[in-house]
Amino acid sequence: MEYLDEKDLDYIAIGAAVLGAGGGGDPYVGKLMAKAAIRKHGKVKMITVDELKDDSLIIPSAMMGAPAVMLEKLPNGGEPEAAFKALETHLGKKADAVMSIEAGGINSCIPIYTAACLGLPIVDADSMGRAFPELPMTTFGVAGLAATPMVVCDEKGNKLLIETVDNAWSETLARTATIAMGLASMISIYCVSGKELKDYGVRGTISLAREIGKKILMSYSEKTSPVEAILKLTAGVQLFEGKIKDVQRSLTTGFVCGKVFFDGIENDKGSSFEMDFQNENLVGFKNGIPAAMTPDLITVLDKETGMPITTENLKYGQRTSIIGMPCDKFWRTDAGIAQVGPRYFKYDLDYVPIEILNQKEEQDNVL
Amino acid sequence: MEYLDEKDLDYIAIGAAVLGAGGGGDPYVGKLMAKAAIRKHGKVKMITVDELKDDSLIIPSAMMGAPAVMLEKLPNGGEPEAAFKALETHLGKKADAVMSIEAGGINSCIPIYTAACLGLPIVDADSMGRAFPELPMTTFGVAGLAATPMVVCDEKGNKLLIETVDNAWSETLARTATIAMGLASMISIYCVSGKELKDYGVRGTISLAREIGKKILMSYSEKTSPVEAILKLTAGVQLFEGKIKDVQRSLTTGFVCGKVFFDGIENDKGSSFEMDFQNENLVGFKNGIPAAMTPDLITVLDKETGMPITTENLKYGQRTSIIGMPCDKFWRTDAGIAQVGPRYFKYDLDYVPIEILNQKEEQDNVL
Repeated sequence: MEYLDEKDLDYIAIGAAVLGAGGGGDPYVGKLMAKAAIRKHGKVKMITVDELKDDSLIIPSAMMGAPAVMLEKLPNGGEPEAAFKALETHLGKKADAVMSIEAGGINSCIPIYTAACLGLPIVDADSMGRAFPELPMTTFGVAGLAATPMVVCDEKGNKLLIETVDNAWSETLARTATIAMGLASMISIYCVSGKELKDYGVRGTISLAREIGKKILMSYSEKTSPVEAILKLTAGVQLFEGKIKDVQRSLTTGFVCGKVFFDGIENDKGSSFEMDFQNENLVGFKNGIPAAMTPDLITVLDKETGMPITTENLKYGQRTSIIGMPCDKFWRTDAGIAQVGPRYFKYDLDYVPIEILNQKEEQDNVL
Repeated sequence: MEYLDEKDLDYIAIGAAVLGAGGGGDPYVGKLMAKAAIRKHGKVKMITVDELKDDSLIIPSAMMGAPAVMLEKLPNGGEPEAAFKALETHLGKKADAVMSIEAGGINSCIPIYTAACLGLPIVDADSMGRAFPELPMTTFGVAGLAATPMVVCDEKGNKLLIETVDNAWSETLARTATIAMGLASMISIYCVSGKELKDYGVRGTISLAREIGKKILMSYSEKTSPVEAILKLTAGVQLFEGKIKDVQRSLTTGFVCGKVFFDGIENDKGSSFEMDFQNENLVGFKNGIPAAMTPDLITVLDKETGMPITTENLKYGQRTSIIGMPCDKFWRTDAGIAQVGPRYFKYDLDYVPIEILNQKEEQDNVL
């Protein structure tokens, strides 16, 4: 057991955005909210999954919608608590802890905000080990747990309690409501028991995010490479060094979808890299050949500072390091690949783990 | 106090469709549901508004969406009760009676179905005295009562509890959910106290619908004019006798919208009539001049049988009598006109009551 303070939020916001694989939202707004809540209510206790009782009730708190919208349509601050409390009321039970549904800038900060406001501990875990664009895409969902009952709140004060027959319907009904609310909402969803979290959660995500963020910020004074530090902490590989030459972005059906094109620089001079995203980065092609694919993590970093660039912040001219990181083992099961593998996102590709894709390249080089 | 039996359902379904002003849905499916429920559970007690205690809880039960869709996407039968019970659970209180939110084929039958299934009485009243396309368009809404908490259920088993900051948001969120559910849902909404219903309800709608339906069916054996009988019961006027020469219909944003064009026959030979609808008939123009406009009722009847033709059943070649009926006095207040007058539906017209529009015409003829 330990406590998260304002400084930790700086680290977590950065590190979670690295794990967010381009998604999970620009951390700025969420970080400000969480820091203000810690200033007002005090530090947030962080507990490990093992500290929970099997019959504890844990409720994730998250933002839903297009992260780009959150930069302009600010929350009023009361929605995450309203959604959380409405779900408690519906369940007729008080929660023992808050958790993150995904690792990502805003969605690692919002649950800390909610935990601070409600005086509850946050669990050092999440249900993705990264960010994904749709509600069924959680380790909980793949394990067969129901996303609903869930609550969706907006900044105006509207509130929906949703109960569905499956998680695909949760996604459809919560997404259409979120779109109608103006493309961003705050939700509480996937309430789980301590036992379920122990069995199906991804452990240690918040402390990993904090460690990544800390290494990035420390690298400036220690004159070390932030990118190398990230690769070491996440067992990641550098996929490409490139300058963004074009970004195509559209807000469709509640997502930020698009493509980004990179021209190689330094070691990759003469090569090109192309990447698709739907809130999160999905598949990266180096010279037309897949270099990494969902559910493995692809994150674009600022080449010099190592700071993660979320999909809504990709801009022409940015000099970047594109890195890939292996996803949680849960996603590499058949059920995981069916839910979030490349074919789910309409790619005619079989999933190949990033280690193999990049090992193969090395072998090719040797031959 | 009296009891509604299966035969009453035949009358009510027809009469309510006359009052539905083209909307409220084809009564066929709703009537079958209500009759089956009465066969199974027994007759439904109908009470007057005055029989209610001031602190009684009355919950309306209704279908939401595009009536045309209900002819193909049938309910599974459990949704109206599921929505009703979920609202009771949320309120933590059992309802004392069911009521209709609007007069209209399906939405006069569904509450009788729900009342039969739950063993509750139905109140002889509604909150429109006709049908209207959007949730805020009730006498309750105009009086400032909240549409929410409301529950939306679909035939698959999905369920939403909606709480909003105003009735326009109730409409937006329930409508987008209904569209996502496949354009038709069952709802419980506008729960009111006995006092509120006494103050703001439209009284006697169900018995009026039954009387109209009965007169239409009796006219066949009595060899009387069904159209004249309807005009007498509703203080209505005949606007036009015409044959449908074109129907333009589109399912947009969850509504059946369109235009219908009539060529005059018999007394109106040589004249034309044009009418717009959004689920319900909105404004009728005889030779380009408004002959009746919302919130007054415009209903298209089969010229020979007097049977009402709802907007989804308008077809090329039908020989019709178009009638107009004055709306409830509640709609003629400034607040009522603001909510459902012609300007709300984007017409550049000030509301003129149907009696005046048609009195004027008579004067013109005299001059």
